[in-house]
Amino acid sequence: MGGGGVLRVANLTQECSMVRLEDARPLIAAAEKKAQELGQPMNIAVADEGGNLVAHVRMDGAWLGSIDISIKKAFTSRAFDITTQELAKNAQPGGQFYGIHASNDGRVMIFAGGIPLKKNGKVVGAVGVSEGSGDQNHADATAGASAF
Amino acid sequence: MGGGGVLRVANLTQECSMVRLEDARPLIAAAEKKAQELGQPMNIAVADEGGNLVAHVRMDGAWLGSIDISIKKAFTSRAFDITTQELAKNAQPGGQFYGIHASNDGRVMIFAGGIPLKKNGKVVGAVGVSEGSGDQNHADATAGASAF
Amino acid sequence: MGGGGVLRVANLTQECSMVRLEDARPLIAAAEKKAQELGQPMNIAVADEGGNLVAHVRMDGAWLGSIDISIKKAFTSRAFDITTQELAKNAQPGGQFYGIHASNDGRVMIFAGGIPLKKNGKVVGAVGVSEGSGDQNHADATAGASAF
Amino acid sequence: MGGGGVLRVANLTQECSMVRLEDARPLIAAAEKKAQELGQPMNIAVADEGGNLVAHVRMDGAWLGSIDISIKKAFTSRAFDITTQELAKNAQPGGQFYGIHASNDGRVMIFAGGIPLKKNGKVVGAVGVSEGSGDQNHADATAGASAF
Repeated sequence: MGGGGVLRVANLTQECSMVRLEDARPLIAAAEKKAQELGQPMNIAVADEGGNLVAHVRMDGAWLGSIDISIKKAFTSRAFDITTQELAKNAQPGGQFYGIHASNDGRVMIFAGGIPLKKNGKVVGAVGVSEGSGDQNHADATAGASAF
Repeated sequence: MGGGGVLRVANLTQECSMVRLEDARPLIAAAEKKAQELGQPMNIAVADEGGNLVAHVRMDGAWLGSIDISIKKAFTSRAFDITTQELAKNAQPGGQFYGIHASNDGRVMIFAGGIPLKKNGKVVGAVGVSEGSGDQNHADATAGASAF
Repeated sequence: MGGGGVLRVANLTQECSMVRLEDARPLIAAAEKKAQELGQPMNIAVADEGGNLVAHVRMDGAWLGSIDISIKKAFTSRAFDITTQELAKNAQPGGQFYGIHASNDGRVMIFAGGIPLKKNGKVVGAVGVSEGSGDQNHADATAGASAF
Repeated sequence: MGGGGVLRVANLTQECSMVRLEDARPLIAAAEKKAQELGQPMNIAVADEGGNLVAHVRMDGAWLGSIDISIKKAFTSRAFDITTQELAKNAQPGGQFYGIHASNDGRVMIFAGGIPLKKNGKVVGAVGVSEGSGDQNHADATAGASAF
């Protein structure tokens, strides 16, 4: 993988698209597997460095209303480089970020299920999971993120 | 359709959950394959009978702006049981459906790339593809729909 | 302020276009400098008398989700002639302005980081800063406003 | 710039954040200079690889309504890797992309002023300019993009 200038540019390009579709697939598969273990069908979404959707699946029987939520949880976790579970703590009435859910044209979700994806310590995307309890969502998103 | 009560219920269930995640996967795979043949990375989305998203992928290098468009083309094709290419013809200025793109809170796309999915002659979902020319989109969506 | 007609018009013009781009630049520079001292990259936005954006910068590494928030904090501070930190106190459940975040098509931010800009005691614009803790935001916005 | 693993990672990180604030500043300065030559104050916006705003300025006297337009032109050019002038041709009634302006929640602008920013042939961001005629917008955005 070493080598001269041209090769390095090629490598750079590849490494710059941080969350590629081939990265998202195993991540989603891991989250699906965890969801099956939990006996809870889920919506699972993956966003890239720009907060834009890379892939989404709705498992059979998962809530329709959670399609949007899973995609927005992924956006939120990348947009603020934080789990939505952690953000939730600061977004309650009286908290320092209370009202943040009204920003970004309604794309900010403030309950558990969104987890940032990191490479070399830098956030390069996020996974968002929606369905069931907050703890289930977080566990499922964690399973996905671990596969990244 | 023969059979005892239990079997009939099973059949019913199968026919009612018309576009399951396991139906969407090979459809998306076929559209991805066609997109590779066309040398044009695509966004591909599948909607179910309710017009709601089942799954989405953005191939590496596909347009960011087409994430939304692919999902909305799938919605549109199911919402009006028509290809968006066909709808486009009627949605031009002077056409009988001109202005339809302003309905449904901006979810109606009026250019090629959305195709209904049918079972036994009934529309049960749709595929939406976005990227490249209208003809490419339509060809790619057709490839996906054929795999259904 | 003395002088003949032409000079008076010039003065008037200067005082009326209260937050010009040349006013916004040193303000943003000061906020950037403070952000560097705090070790916290920020989004910084400046609004004029009409609440409309004059300039915005996102420092490298600052949250994507804070682009929108910084711009809306600036709008909010000018729209209600108040710091968003102060507004926050009145916008909590039970407070006299609870629900205000739902007004103005989602442009009202109710957490710290927005500060009005004054000339001769009159609010003529605002600065909005977003990133890090509410205290950091407020300190940074104050640094910016002080440079005005 | 050669060297071992650690150095390469550092380089990678730097090169991956494709449009940094320090890239946007000279670009905006060039567009401002061009606008002054044209005698036409402008709104100028720069977006990064994810289509997200990096920086914006409104020159004194520029239209208020163009704040939003400049930001959305930058988004559009990145979202579809195309100038908005070119996109406009395909987005007219009867064109293959007619109706695209209704997608992406109203963020797609289909008139001249948005230009993609490229590095090594790959689109990594965009500039959006709004004010005056389409030709002026395009000329001004080109001046900015050339400084990139």
